[in-house]
Amino acid sequence: MDRSARSTSVYDSTLYGPIFSNPAMAALWSDDEMVKSWLSVETALAQVQAELGVIPTEAAQAIAKAALVDNLDWSRLALDTAEVGMAIKPVIDQIAAAGGPLVQQYLHWGATTQDVLDSGQALRLQRALALIKTQLCELIAVLSAMVEAHRHTLMVARTNAQDAAPSTWGFHASSYLTELCRHWQRLGELTPRATMGMYGGAIGNLASVGSQGIAIRNRLLAKLGLPCPQGQWNASHDGLVEVVQFFALVHGTLLRIANDVELMSRAPIAEVQEGESGGGSSTMPHKANPRAANMIQALARLGWMYASSAPAMLDQQDVRSSSARMLDWSLLPEACLAVSGGLLRANKLLAKLHINSQRMRDNFQASRHLILSEAVMMKLAEKVGREQAYGLVKDAIARHPEPHWQLPALLRDTPAVMAHFSDDELARACDPAGHLGASNALIDEALALAASIK
Amino acid sequence: MDRSARSTSVYDSTLYGPIFSNPAMAALWSDDEMVKSWLSVETALAQVQAELGVIPTEAAQAIAKAALVDNLDWSRLALDTAEVGMAIKPVIDQIAAAGGPLVQQYLHWGATTQDVLDSGQALRLQRALALIKTQLCELIAVLSAMVEAHRHTLMVARTNAQDAAPSTWGFHASSYLTELCRHWQRLGELTPRATMGMYGGAIGNLASVGSQGIAIRNRLLAKLGLPCPQGQWNASHDGLVEVVQFFALVHGTLLRIANDVELMSRAPIAEVQEGESGGGSSTMPHKANPRAANMIQALARLGWMYASSAPAMLDQQDVRSSSARMLDWSLLPEACLAVSGGLLRANKLLAKLHINSQRMRDNFQASRHLILSEAVMMKLAEKVGREQAYGLVKDAIARHPEPHWQLPALLRDTPAVMAHFSDDELARACDPAGHLGASNALIDEALALAASIK
Amino acid sequence: MDRSARSTSVYDSTLYGPIFSNPAMAALWSDDEMVKSWLSVETALAQVQAELGVIPTEAAQAIAKAALVDNLDWSRLALDTAEVGMAIKPVIDQIAAAGGPLVQQYLHWGATTQDVLDSGQALRLQRALALIKTQLCELIAVLSAMVEAHRHTLMVARTNAQDAAPSTWGFHASSYLTELCRHWQRLGELTPRATMGMYGGAIGNLASVGSQGIAIRNRLLAKLGLPCPQGQWNASHDGLVEVVQFFALVHGTLLRIANDVELMSRAPIAEVQEGESGGGSSTMPHKANPRAANMIQALARLGWMYASSAPAMLDQQDVRSSSARMLDWSLLPEACLAVSGGLLRANKLLAKLHINSQRMRDNFQASRHLILSEAVMMKLAEKVGREQAYGLVKDAIARHPEPHWQLPALLRDTPAVMAHFSDDELARACDPAGHLGASNALIDEALALAASIK
Amino acid sequence: MDRSARSTSVYDSTLYGPIFSNPAMAALWSDDEMVKSWLSVETALAQVQAELGVIPTEAAQAIAKAALVDNLDWSRLALDTAEVGMAIKPVIDQIAAAGGPLVQQYLHWGATTQDVLDSGQALRLQRALALIKTQLCELIAVLSAMVEAHRHTLMVARTNAQDAAPSTWGFHASSYLTELCRHWQRLGELTPRATMGMYGGAIGNLASVGSQGIAIRNRLLAKLGLPCPQGQWNASHDGLVEVVQFFALVHGTLLRIANDVELMSRAPIAEVQEGESGGGSSTMPHKANPRAANMIQALARLGWMYASSAPAMLDQQDVRSSSARMLDWSLLPEACLAVSGGLLRANKLLAKLHINSQRMRDNFQASRHLILSEAVMMKLAEKVGREQAYGLVKDAIARHPEPHWQLPALLRDTPAVMAHFSDDELARACDPAGHLGASNALIDEALALAASIK
Repeated sequence: MDRSARSTSVYDSTLYGPIFSNPAMAALWSDDEMVKSWLSVETALAQVQAELGVIPTEAAQAIAKAALVDNLDWSRLALDTAEVGMAIKPVIDQIAAAGGPLVQQYLHWGATTQDVLDSGQALRLQRALALIKTQLCELIAVLSAMVEAHRHTLMVARTNAQDAAPSTWGFHASSYLTELCRHWQRLGELTPRATMGMYGGAIGNLASVGSQGIAIRNRLLAKLGLPCPQGQWNASHDGLVEVVQFFALVHGTLLRIANDVELMSRAPIAEVQEGESGGGSSTMPHKANPRAANMIQALARLGWMYASSAPAMLDQQDVRSSSARMLDWSLLPEACLAVSGGLLRANKLLAKLHINSQRMRDNFQASRHLILSEAVMMKLAEKVGREQAYGLVKDAIARHPEPHWQLPALLRDTPAVMAHFSDDELARACDPAGHLGASNALIDEALALAASIK
Repeated sequence: MDRSARSTSVYDSTLYGPIFSNPAMAALWSDDEMVKSWLSVETALAQVQAELGVIPTEAAQAIAKAALVDNLDWSRLALDTAEVGMAIKPVIDQIAAAGGPLVQQYLHWGATTQDVLDSGQALRLQRALALIKTQLCELIAVLSAMVEAHRHTLMVARTNAQDAAPSTWGFHASSYLTELCRHWQRLGELTPRATMGMYGGAIGNLASVGSQGIAIRNRLLAKLGLPCPQGQWNASHDGLVEVVQFFALVHGTLLRIANDVELMSRAPIAEVQEGESGGGSSTMPHKANPRAANMIQALARLGWMYASSAPAMLDQQDVRSSSARMLDWSLLPEACLAVSGGLLRANKLLAKLHINSQRMRDNFQASRHLILSEAVMMKLAEKVGREQAYGLVKDAIARHPEPHWQLPALLRDTPAVMAHFSDDELARACDPAGHLGASNALIDEALALAASIK
Repeated sequence: MDRSARSTSVYDSTLYGPIFSNPAMAALWSDDEMVKSWLSVETALAQVQAELGVIPTEAAQAIAKAALVDNLDWSRLALDTAEVGMAIKPVIDQIAAAGGPLVQQYLHWGATTQDVLDSGQALRLQRALALIKTQLCELIAVLSAMVEAHRHTLMVARTNAQDAAPSTWGFHASSYLTELCRHWQRLGELTPRATMGMYGGAIGNLASVGSQGIAIRNRLLAKLGLPCPQGQWNASHDGLVEVVQFFALVHGTLLRIANDVELMSRAPIAEVQEGESGGGSSTMPHKANPRAANMIQALARLGWMYASSAPAMLDQQDVRSSSARMLDWSLLPEACLAVSGGLLRANKLLAKLHINSQRMRDNFQASRHLILSEAVMMKLAEKVGREQAYGLVKDAIARHPEPHWQLPALLRDTPAVMAHFSDDELARACDPAGHLGASNALIDEALALAASIK
Repeated sequence: MDRSARSTSVYDSTLYGPIFSNPAMAALWSDDEMVKSWLSVETALAQVQAELGVIPTEAAQAIAKAALVDNLDWSRLALDTAEVGMAIKPVIDQIAAAGGPLVQQYLHWGATTQDVLDSGQALRLQRALALIKTQLCELIAVLSAMVEAHRHTLMVARTNAQDAAPSTWGFHASSYLTELCRHWQRLGELTPRATMGMYGGAIGNLASVGSQGIAIRNRLLAKLGLPCPQGQWNASHDGLVEVVQFFALVHGTLLRIANDVELMSRAPIAEVQEGESGGGSSTMPHKANPRAANMIQALARLGWMYASSAPAMLDQQDVRSSSARMLDWSLLPEACLAVSGGLLRANKLLAKLHINSQRMRDNFQASRHLILSEAVMMKLAEKVGREQAYGLVKDAIARHPEPHWQLPALLRDTPAVMAHFSDDELARACDPAGHLGASNALIDEALALAASIK
């Protein structure tokens, strides 16, 4: 059996990996990159300690040479990790064995397992959040173009699943845009909190490195490019929980887009259609399933699932409790993979979406154009007053209950109304394009916000 | 039966309300205040529309006079709401009936149910978040004082439930402080997103108020003191979800405090004890249960529960879908009550906590002071080198395996060690106070951060 | 202000209570019924202990007379409960004060707070589950009639939001039925586990009632009509969690029904319409919002929320930890109210649902009847072989790409096909009613299962 | 880079896989076994159809020969699956290409993607549940032995984190046992509902296989050993959700055990200690972290996470909606891995647990043996009446407030008490072993229940 067919998670699966995940994000969270991030921390720590005279310069050089992922025997690592329950000590032992006595003496100086796990994780999370940011910006760009292009594309706006009033596709899509802009803003705010570096020794008070503790911490985190915490924070996982919660908000917007696309691509509505190939049925050749929308919906539920349990990482005791901490080993990578996969699918979905403007226009018929009755009544009110206008329109509708009577026709069939309207005036009154309110100004607000991003 | 015994929710319950909730927060979320917030929106809307000449000034005055909660018949309101499924129309109908014809003509002009529901909710949420902010600040103040007071109170620091190294209670408590400061920062960031006002009419495009739509919206929200949105956002609930998620982070810190208090008040540890009265057992007179800690733990689980389902508010379609929106009617008040109740209890808990410094000191015995062996070894290493020092200490321990041999005594009983130490030097080496690393500097960082809060 | 406008929970709210809850269920979970259930336990306990000679018969009689909810002063109860943190001791104290010395001496004999809380809760839960069972049976009956009535009502079956193949409404609705039957079965299985009585004293070992402990327990629970546990189970909440999880399954079925109704009542589909009055818009008079469906969807999300956090009740330590236990005070009543409210709404929704059979039939046009192509091809294959048949049908479709060409017409316009079909044969081949497979047999299976319920 | 270092999930990770998962369960859920299960369904389907004369016998034979996992090109499978969005069609295409024309013509006859996915999944789930059942039985056996062995091992029972009354370790552990027995019972009840086979074609009505549909379904599922459903159930995921919810209950019991072990292994309590090797600190050599307990706690939180989102699988529309269905691809395997991993760890933990009976006995001192005061008072009451006895004991305690006065000593120091007790009588009254109530009978109930399992 091929090694690649042994995975169990949808993110690692040969079959499902490509549709659930984003390769760029998956690369970040591999075992290999995990261990590399730890070795980066150990190497930088040694270098900083050498700079400050805490360990010999030669030791730092020897550590830099030895602390390579190629020096690791993965099978033994797996065995030792299972034995110890944590992977840092086994990794250090192998690197120490690979280096000389200086490495054995000075590697991991004044550090504890948590320092390396957390700072290594912060390094990877920093890259992950940068990728998310890029993906958000791309999606904002794609959507901005769509909003501008469809600023005047008329469609039926629906509320509570019922036809409600005339709108445009550009106006509707602009509401996705402002959510994404808020997500971009949130990401900027939370990133420094979520990627703080960790260096504090056994209980976070830097006791084992003497008087230079604070200096080592500050230099180390500066070298790693990680924000520096204030005070002890070994048990504090609020920054990580915030990340996973934030992803749930991003999934929310993607889900809303997917819900709309799925709905609007139903045969009786048919206003949009996914443009990516695929989606075929194994037994019904006429079908083109909305696979991207469905995938985004599934990933959103996974993203919400991670968020729902993220607070359990806060169920801490003492200086730290490891059970709550082990949760991030599973939650954080999967949460990053899900949101990045969702953004990737959404980006393609929107970039290739077929928009059927004619069908959007035709669908006013489903409600017999009655959704324009309020607008017509207001026009008539200008001539006969609101009360009489209301009565005239209501009567006209009541006298034409048959499903084939569309609003313009039934009004033309009502002399009491036509006494006040020319055919032309009536046509204009029944034109949805005349009842879009401040759509354009609101679209401009959204586009301006989007343009201010990055 | 007394009316007050008919409630079912712990927040409204006669028996449980007082222990689950905070009266100041409960007052905010009552039916009464809900309807008042709606009437405030209707009144302000009329006033703004009068200022802009959209409706007559007399209409606005009449509306201000009529739109009073005292004009409502609650039983009929309940019946009509059950009939319609939404409460706004029934409220408007009663106010209109109570006012004259001008009210009937101009009340709720160009508004839709969602405008009133959401802007009214934003008004209440704004007050709720202000209360949370005050409670956070109070807790930060109480904790800051405790941290300063116990900066030098020695205690055993524990990791993974095991005794680990010497620390101080002030240092440990300072880690609560920095979390709370980050929560304060988050609250400031999210408040404008969570309290945006809503005014847009049927589908958010202001179509029914003609060319003055944007002007009305801007003036209305300014008058109400609510942040103004950019673009349409009828289906966007990200700001509300973010609030409930944020509360989960606050609960996380409170839970951590409660976990520590509960644990440290166990008889074999006995380092702290709750100072509020109460907690008695109905059958065991010697017991004093940690009721505040337990209540905070229970509220944290409720707070996490609300957060776990908050993203369902984002499962939207079209301009808006009402099922997702109805969730906030339950989630938002309960989430506010739980976090405010938790903060109230935590504040009292910490303000009245008995801290048994002597017992904290005595508990070093539980691990036979062996948690100081690393520190002793480092002192010895200054004289004989690290390798030999390590061997000497390890041997000394190995030769005194009996549980009554505390580290200082067993070292004194080891000539090979005492060859390098005077009694006095040994005592100093075994003194936990000498191994606190950068505790003080880290405490100062935390206190400075706390001092910068408002 | 009216007292009734002070509630904050949607279940207790004057405005929202009637639409979120079921009065019969709400009555069960009131403060009043809670205290009554506790008094029932105390009274029964005294009676049993008198029967066994553990306490004097006069004491039991005095307790029966004193242990009345009318003897309670609710305001003092609220104050004392806030003080103690638990309500049992304050209740006992007031009843003892109301009774004579015999009551003071023998009330709550050998019992602890948990015994009364848990057995009282079991009594109420037993009634709650019986109500749910009745509601399930009613829904099964309503649905069975609908399935039978619409066994032959043709409709388009959809998969992944796309038109897929011909079906009938009765066949579709039969799939709700089998889920409900499985729920009925689950309810029967879990009820004895969820309603076990509790009597064990301080730590569950019956130490304070001497040698008669087991006898008292067995008689007490028999008298209360509660299942008897095996062994100690003070920390075991699995039965309660199971109930809340089960409700989530029930909500799942109701949600699926609501999703289908909401979708099928959209204007371009219009296959069903809610028949209850209400659902009006405050600004769009033509609208009839699917309020029952939306309410069911909202309640389902609440029900899932309770289930998501129910396992936190299992996060126990020692003999029992009260924080996890206090969760059921909130979770259990709200979960019962939500599921009962959902069942109530679903029952009315289905009983009054308008089913537009003609529109169901017409909607085959949305996919140009192409969903019948597979069926036509199979008929043709009987005459010319599968391969040639497939090619002929595919070609015919390809040559008539315009949206107005429905399958029968385009085939009639294709001589190569009509060479093998009479008009009549073609009409039959294109008749959805001829392609329903084993629908009837499968419906019969579902109805037989439903008929076997109670 | 080694292929094995590219995984991202903790279950597939080279480093973390061994500690998060159970190899026997992981093997079941691999890509490889997934595809094998699909091929088993296709092969059995062809065989049954041949038996019923629906397809030629030679076709079934050819399918059996071709439908082998070795005939698959995994890289192309991955590409095609990403293209189509579902893996079944790509698998069928490759098998068809590998077989002859008969395979191409008759493979997947009258089946749809869901039939193969769901029946294949049911086959694997059936094996998974059998493994869980075995693991449950093993744990029940280990615990039964422990309960019997420690029936008389005295310990302090604690409630609400406070010392409460005398108990035994066997009595406490017996409460785990009854929970596990209820889980075993639940597993038996839900297995048939969770492993129903699926065969229904495009929309579940068996339309494409003519009159033999029901017969094929019944024979196929019998051959596969899967329970047969009643009626259509394409959108019904209640059985799967129930499985994941059930796992959450199992995790609850394991978590409770882990919580107790973690707590009782703290240095000031030290009543138990994990017996597996490992748990070392990378910087504190004296520590032995409770790794198994912590791992079980982490897995429980993951298991609860899966359960919290499992109901989203019920958010269905129409005949089926694929987004909700894709959730099981992730949830089901991970949920099985987590619970199986938890059971594995718990089994080892309990089998190797060091129980320090002496320390359990010594810990009565933490509360100065005051937890025995109620018992002493009851003995005294036999001689002087309850009221006077209560006063005497209370006074004695009040006069000896210093922490070193243990109950027996302070009573011996109180002449008013000793007037009624001989030294011997007092010693007996203060002996915790005399106040265990019905422990033994309750242990017997639990053991009898456990013995009835399997």
